[in-house]
Amino acid sequence: MLILMKSDASDADIEAVCGRVRELGYTPHLIPGATRVAIGITGNQGAIDPDLFARFPAIAEAVPVSRPFKLVSREVKPDDTVIKVGGAVFGGGTFGVMAGPCAVEGREQLLATARAVRAAGAHVLRGGAYKPRTSPYSFQGLKEEGLELLAEARAATGLPVITEVVDTRDVDLVAEKADILQVGARNMQNFALLEAVGHAGRPVMLKRGLSATIQEFLMAAEYIVSKGNYQVILCERGIRTFETMTRNTLDLGSIPLIKRLTHLPIIIDPSHGTGDYRSVPALARAAVAVGADGLMVEVHPDPAHALSDGPQSLTPARFEALMESVRAIAAVVGMKM
Amino acid sequence: MLILMKSDASDADIEAVCGRVRELGYTPHLIPGATRVAIGITGNQGAIDPDLFARFPAIAEAVPVSRPFKLVSREVKPDDTVIKVGGAVFGGGTFGVMAGPCAVEGREQLLATARAVRAAGAHVLRGGAYKPRTSPYSFQGLKEEGLELLAEARAATGLPVITEVVDTRDVDLVAEKADILQVGARNMQNFALLEAVGHAGRPVMLKRGLSATIQEFLMAAEYIVSKGNYQVILCERGIRTFETMTRNTLDLGSIPLIKRLTHLPIIIDPSHGTGDYRSVPALARAAVAVGADGLMVEVHPDPAHALSDGPQSLTPARFEALMESVRAIAAVVGMKM
Amino acid sequence: MLILMKSDASDADIEAVCGRVRELGYTPHLIPGATRVAIGITGNQGAIDPDLFARFPAIAEAVPVSRPFKLVSREVKPDDTVIKVGGAVFGGGTFGVMAGPCAVEGREQLLATARAVRAAGAHVLRGGAYKPRTSPYSFQGLKEEGLELLAEARAATGLPVITEVVDTRDVDLVAEKADILQVGARNMQNFALLEAVGHAGRPVMLKRGLSATIQEFLMAAEYIVSKGNYQVILCERGIRTFETMTRNTLDLGSIPLIKRLTHLPIIIDPSHGTGDYRSVPALARAAVAVGADGLMVEVHPDPAHALSDGPQSLTPARFEALMESVRAIAAVVGMKM
Amino acid sequence: MLILMKSDASDADIEAVCGRVRELGYTPHLIPGATRVAIGITGNQGAIDPDLFARFPAIAEAVPVSRPFKLVSREVKPDDTVIKVGGAVFGGGTFGVMAGPCAVEGREQLLATARAVRAAGAHVLRGGAYKPRTSPYSFQGLKEEGLELLAEARAATGLPVITEVVDTRDVDLVAEKADILQVGARNMQNFALLEAVGHAGRPVMLKRGLSATIQEFLMAAEYIVSKGNYQVILCERGIRTFETMTRNTLDLGSIPLIKRLTHLPIIIDPSHGTGDYRSVPALARAAVAVGADGLMVEVHPDPAHALSDGPQSLTPARFEALMESVRAIAAVVGMKM
Repeated sequence: MLILMKSDASDADIEAVCGRVRELGYTPHLIPGATRVAIGITGNQGAIDPDLFARFPAIAEAVPVSRPFKLVSREVKPDDTVIKVGGAVFGGGTFGVMAGPCAVEGREQLLATARAVRAAGAHVLRGGAYKPRTSPYSFQGLKEEGLELLAEARAATGLPVITEVVDTRDVDLVAEKADILQVGARNMQNFALLEAVGHAGRPVMLKRGLSATIQEFLMAAEYIVSKGNYQVILCERGIRTFETMTRNTLDLGSIPLIKRLTHLPIIIDPSHGTGDYRSVPALARAAVAVGADGLMVEVHPDPAHALSDGPQSLTPARFEALMESVRAIAAVVGMKM
Repeated sequence: MLILMKSDASDADIEAVCGRVRELGYTPHLIPGATRVAIGITGNQGAIDPDLFARFPAIAEAVPVSRPFKLVSREVKPDDTVIKVGGAVFGGGTFGVMAGPCAVEGREQLLATARAVRAAGAHVLRGGAYKPRTSPYSFQGLKEEGLELLAEARAATGLPVITEVVDTRDVDLVAEKADILQVGARNMQNFALLEAVGHAGRPVMLKRGLSATIQEFLMAAEYIVSKGNYQVILCERGIRTFETMTRNTLDLGSIPLIKRLTHLPIIIDPSHGTGDYRSVPALARAAVAVGADGLMVEVHPDPAHALSDGPQSLTPARFEALMESVRAIAAVVGMKM
Repeated sequence: MLILMKSDASDADIEAVCGRVRELGYTPHLIPGATRVAIGITGNQGAIDPDLFARFPAIAEAVPVSRPFKLVSREVKPDDTVIKVGGAVFGGGTFGVMAGPCAVEGREQLLATARAVRAAGAHVLRGGAYKPRTSPYSFQGLKEEGLELLAEARAATGLPVITEVVDTRDVDLVAEKADILQVGARNMQNFALLEAVGHAGRPVMLKRGLSATIQEFLMAAEYIVSKGNYQVILCERGIRTFETMTRNTLDLGSIPLIKRLTHLPIIIDPSHGTGDYRSVPALARAAVAVGADGLMVEVHPDPAHALSDGPQSLTPARFEALMESVRAIAAVVGMKM
Repeated sequence: MLILMKSDASDADIEAVCGRVRELGYTPHLIPGATRVAIGITGNQGAIDPDLFARFPAIAEAVPVSRPFKLVSREVKPDDTVIKVGGAVFGGGTFGVMAGPCAVEGREQLLATARAVRAAGAHVLRGGAYKPRTSPYSFQGLKEEGLELLAEARAATGLPVITEVVDTRDVDLVAEKADILQVGARNMQNFALLEAVGHAGRPVMLKRGLSATIQEFLMAAEYIVSKGNYQVILCERGIRTFETMTRNTLDLGSIPLIKRLTHLPIIIDPSHGTGDYRSVPALARAAVAVGADGLMVEVHPDPAHALSDGPQSLTPARFEALMESVRAIAAVVGMKM
């Protein structure tokens, strides 16, 4: 934390701020300048909240100088966290692919998709049992029946399954049935849910919120990790911007930065990121090229009749073609698959 | 819904789309054009999901033409919903003010603030018992102890109390202690929580999410109302934009539009909206002038030592001055207070 | 500027950075910390570009600590700048109103509007002769003929006129005909144009760009002032956000902050800010209440047939009603009109 | 254009709208619905401005149904536009690379960079002679002297050169010296400049504005093409969002969509897109993988002492390594280089 005093701050003003610093248990360091005085603060363990100093009228600005996240930070743990679930591996140079329908709609739909994505080389089956929908009148998922169908699809194909949990009351049940718990974008700052999955004993895939900064995204992961669950996979799925021709703006530019900041693996969801199946293969290729640790892709046997996200779902045939080009680029950038 | 066919669509393409429309139970209407054919759809009750048509290759675009919200819409209920809690009234030409600390920190802090805001003319006491914080290491609220203190403050001052609920598992407890349930911005699309407060039998104040469109905001209210709870107060508290010098961007320009779209009352939170106590009074005055139905303002007896949101909290003296100018403008625009 | 070294920076790393600071003519100040060293920099006149230090691998972060704008800053000039044009006054406690059609469409349209807005109490006549339009196929303005009509309207009504200049080659001509030069939102960072109007010897109204931060807005004003032209009126006209139901998001929350940062007057354009004539009066009232120094409002005698911006234009009768309520709120907040 | 009447619109209301449609020279088509009437419009050549109908009180909504861009559209010209400048080719399956310093700083710096990027395989030399800077106190470029140095570097290396033009008054001079004219992001809607480069007889590279929608981006290209200059290369360089940890948000997700909408080539600028040299190679690889037609990369022999954009500039050695991996991915996706 660095505090900038106003140019007309008196000695008494400066001493008052230094007193507050000492009151908080830290050490103030005066830095005299040509036009104003700055006060550096040391002795703190983590970031100091600049709000603590915002009310002194003689302070021009309080500038935070360290990052608030700790356990998820590469400074604390320089090596990649590697997450293994069944045969799937995320992180540490291995590229994992999750694929399946947006929503579990029925046995036939799910099993057909599961077999198709396994044949094409996917490592994890995705499928929503609890669907957060903007409208209360839209299809909300098969709920417990959906969980059962996912377990059945796992038994039939050997693929581990990931599904979303949307309510703290469901965490135990979902953790019992699924291999990976998904926290969706709209719940990224549902802190009660983050704490609950932090205690669930299952790997968690955390999606970035629609308007979450990278720092908030990592702080949300910190919530989970701080409860003792280090098995967190981050997922970039597009952020909300002024552009409306694409469903979201897929923030691939953040990936190299996130890889520098945290040891956690991060995967890309090009289906939500673009909202249009015609753009998904190109973005999937870009995801490998940019250094992500994996993909989550929506696949549906009959997208035109899908109950949700039909426009962005690939047919099994298109998914198979996508996997081929993803493997080719993975080879170029040195990722195992 | 209007479907625009591509300019090279064949008669068979057009018939295929019309078949799908009939399959869904609606009626297609062909509109021949100079360069392409459009198909109007009638017979639907609510909005049709354009996704249902997005996979026909001969379709250029599917354009939704009606709003998806119903129960909260002024088309359905032209008259203002008026919400009365204790002596407070929101909507129908009466302006209500909620005030109090960001977080309940202790008995003395809460009671002193409650008495001060009542004396200045506030109608509802606010105070957070469960605090959603970006960092897991920040103060998270006094929880149940905080609820007890709020009940005590109500008994001491006669003011109804509002407090935030952040977990479906807490809804019953909070509904037992508080007069109004607050759903925070980060939980605006926590649909499980929206359904739970829809069944809680208490008025709900729903804050707009950081990146929620007006339509999503109204759809979140629709979730609550669709469970039978019509007692919903909307709250604009600032949205997230590229600007970082203000904490949020208070979207006052949306208020006249929201008043035209819905019968629900909407209040303004200038404290979160600007993040700086020096800007709060001006924005409070603007809120009355623009036609809002009320205010929520953070007040703290000693902002410099507040455990959260100190920089944006008013002292009781400043709040009292603010109330005077708010009353003067309310008189000009014809609002009762 | 404060430089944060990485926790593993060596003494040689630190000395290298200090050497670079001295090479630039400034003085480094070491601030030892528990986990890392910070270096404060003094001796600089203005803000130091953090980029100058971004390439030292042992630097964790370079944090700017002062504002880059100078001449427009209240620190440099604490008193309000007051701009007087004909009978109009902006700043220093007086509220000025500019009104007129989006585009000058013809003699009759302009003169009728000019007379109507003067009768309702406007102080300046606005009217676009050069229209920047998103499409090359839209009406682009009457250009020189428009300037002549504006001069004629001024002669007929006594109102000073403001019109937009969109090309450096037109600055002299427009400065000859108009009383105030407008720089539009899309040209806010057209630095060649800013320099040209800085030399034009006329007051300038500078609109905030669609995605301009407050700092960039003030830096654009600094361009004009740095050429010797202190007669700059700022204009907030709405920024671009994710919300599409309103044409722009009018950033009224920035006004108190901008008033603290700069001595220049700032006015509000609720017509572009909302894009809907039904919202304009409420936002105009909010603009006075929030402490702005004036308004710019689009008025057209026949909005349904306007060549541009019809949906957001007021009829003369609605404008007259708006002026009445604006005056009533100005009285409450102590502004002269 | 489709017009939705309100549910309570009378026959007279509907006839009034139909009359206006006919007055504009188009044909109205009534579409009766269960709850309201819609009116389809045919007979128009391009898009109809919905504003023309916004003032009828009985209209609920006017929905545009076609895109406003024409000449740049793939519907009008299905084949890729291929732009050849010297040995460089952009579009039609060939990938072109522009590289060089942000600003021309002097002969030695420019020539050293030019030789290095040519050796590494770049096809065009970039270098700014006129620099648009946020602050009037920052280095503004060598201007005409910079143009001479670029011409010298072309003579020495054989590489065609691209440089930015920022003022209509400079277009002829810059067009005389440079092979490609660059219009920068901040001038993307400087329509006077767009028209001027539309007449300049040189290829133009048009950068997307910081908050320009894809539609506005294409409309800006339409301005240039409508003046007869079809030699336009689009450039995505990052948009402005709420995220501040990256300089901009590189919108790679828009590339497949833009390729579907227009026949013009589009290249990526990962230097401005991320603002950090450590992220540039990963984003350059992603740019090839996503299907872009080329790259623009900032290279400087001594980034730590660059006069502008040092943090995002690559050293020649890093650029050479980047080109190798770009070529490997180009081979995978079938692009010639």
